[in-house]
Amino acid sequence: MTGRGDQSVSLDLLKQKMANFAKERDWDQFHSPRNLLLALVGEVGELSEIFQWKGEVPKGLPDWKEEEKVHLGEELSDVLLYLVRLSDICGIDLGKAALRKVELNAIKYPASSNTNDGIAHTS
Amino acid sequence: MTGRGDQSVSLDLLKQKMANFAKERDWDQFHSPRNLLLALVGEVGELSEIFQWKGEVPKGLPDWKEEEKVHLGEELSDVLLYLVRLSDICGIDLGKAALRKVELNAIKYPASSNTNDGIAHTS
Amino acid sequence: MTGRGDQSVSLDLLKQKMANFAKERDWDQFHSPRNLLLALVGEVGELSEIFQWKGEVPKGLPDWKEEEKVHLGEELSDVLLYLVRLSDICGIDLGKAALRKVELNAIKYPASSNTNDGIAHTS
Amino acid sequence: MTGRGDQSVSLDLLKQKMANFAKERDWDQFHSPRNLLLALVGEVGELSEIFQWKGEVPKGLPDWKEEEKVHLGEELSDVLLYLVRLSDICGIDLGKAALRKVELNAIKYPASSNTNDGIAHTS
Repeated sequence: MTGRGDQSVSLDLLKQKMANFAKERDWDQFHSPRNLLLALVGEVGELSEIFQWKGEVPKGLPDWKEEEKVHLGEELSDVLLYLVRLSDICGIDLGKAALRKVELNAIKYPASSNTNDGIAHTS
Repeated sequence: MTGRGDQSVSLDLLKQKMANFAKERDWDQFHSPRNLLLALVGEVGELSEIFQWKGEVPKGLPDWKEEEKVHLGEELSDVLLYLVRLSDICGIDLGKAALRKVELNAIKYPASSNTNDGIAHTS
Repeated sequence: MTGRGDQSVSLDLLKQKMANFAKERDWDQFHSPRNLLLALVGEVGELSEIFQWKGEVPKGLPDWKEEEKVHLGEELSDVLLYLVRLSDICGIDLGKAALRKVELNAIKYPASSNTNDGIAHTS
Repeated sequence: MTGRGDQSVSLDLLKQKMANFAKERDWDQFHSPRNLLLALVGEVGELSEIFQWKGEVPKGLPDWKEEEKVHLGEELSDVLLYLVRLSDICGIDLGKAALRKVELNAIKYPASSNTNDGIAHTS
């Protein structure tokens, strides 16, 4: 009745999928923290390449071809998947950590401080 | 018994939280695709700094102090939060794209191919 | 009349300075290839932070304060110094490699091909 | 008598070569600061990909094939060339800035402080 597309994708689901994926291919041996971190950096590089010669890009990417958006979705996903895997291998609960970080950010940057220049709002 | 900690965190939840966070602080004006991308790169840099002088690091980070793990969780979260926000601003459904990418990877690297050298498994 | 400022700085000079710097501080033990690479990524992150909330920036940075330019020079330098050090530790002659790469690029992108879209001119 | 290979390559030489290269191809229009920065991030990603599945790598890369070292030299060069070009476009004298940064580092980390843990020596 409600296909997966109707549901929100959880970080735990992706974590489990990545763990199964690695196990089925005997890739756990390659998935050390720093290997995964460098793989993540590699994917961030591929993501950056998509934007590198475009100058400023408006929100929603109105002028992008469908295939460019699909490619972008793939590179965003690669970053996410390595991030989820890196967190898992490090024993970090990424979802829990992210919720906590949002709360810390809310304390650091109270909503009334709308004069903030936005220069460093999650560092 | 059923606090938020028991539930899996979804990408949509984080997306909504980031959108609200920006709106409440009038930060939408700063959240252009390339601004967010560079902010993401900045956070990946901070994540890398945690690992930079450590040499190889074993899975599970057995020798790390609790405060180091908390710090790591924060930097992983910062990368995630900007990734979620960047996807949203670009009009990409990150969860859907990630599930699709896992399926594409499964086709590209069939589970039986365990002779794979693991050199490029999500590129 | 012929102070160092009048001379062009060579990659070999920087390599030698970095090698001496590490030796004098007993830091060779930390300067493994992947440690240096992650340190480089960290500095690229700091460089990106300078540009992250600025939107498009015109050439020559006409509106930047002098102190911002000094800071930028420092972050560009940090990337360069780690790049020089990483090359040295890997046994790569960076200057020679760079000259060769320029020549390869000239073959790949002949000067007459000014219809090039500029999408991938050094990859 | 003394081929170029005998001489040390200067940053100014590379700057001039990159400027000519762009001019001859009418690429100046693409070389805005943030475009070049993202191109640099892309190349750092390619550099990271070389090291990503290797685990710890010893100095001098004793077990690497010649072709791998050539490839590494190319990626290191790509990072350098974009860094040189970005500095030029921003109006920063990279060589001068780098020499100054080495001196600042020497003040920040006196040579006698060999008990330093090496965690943040250029940040």
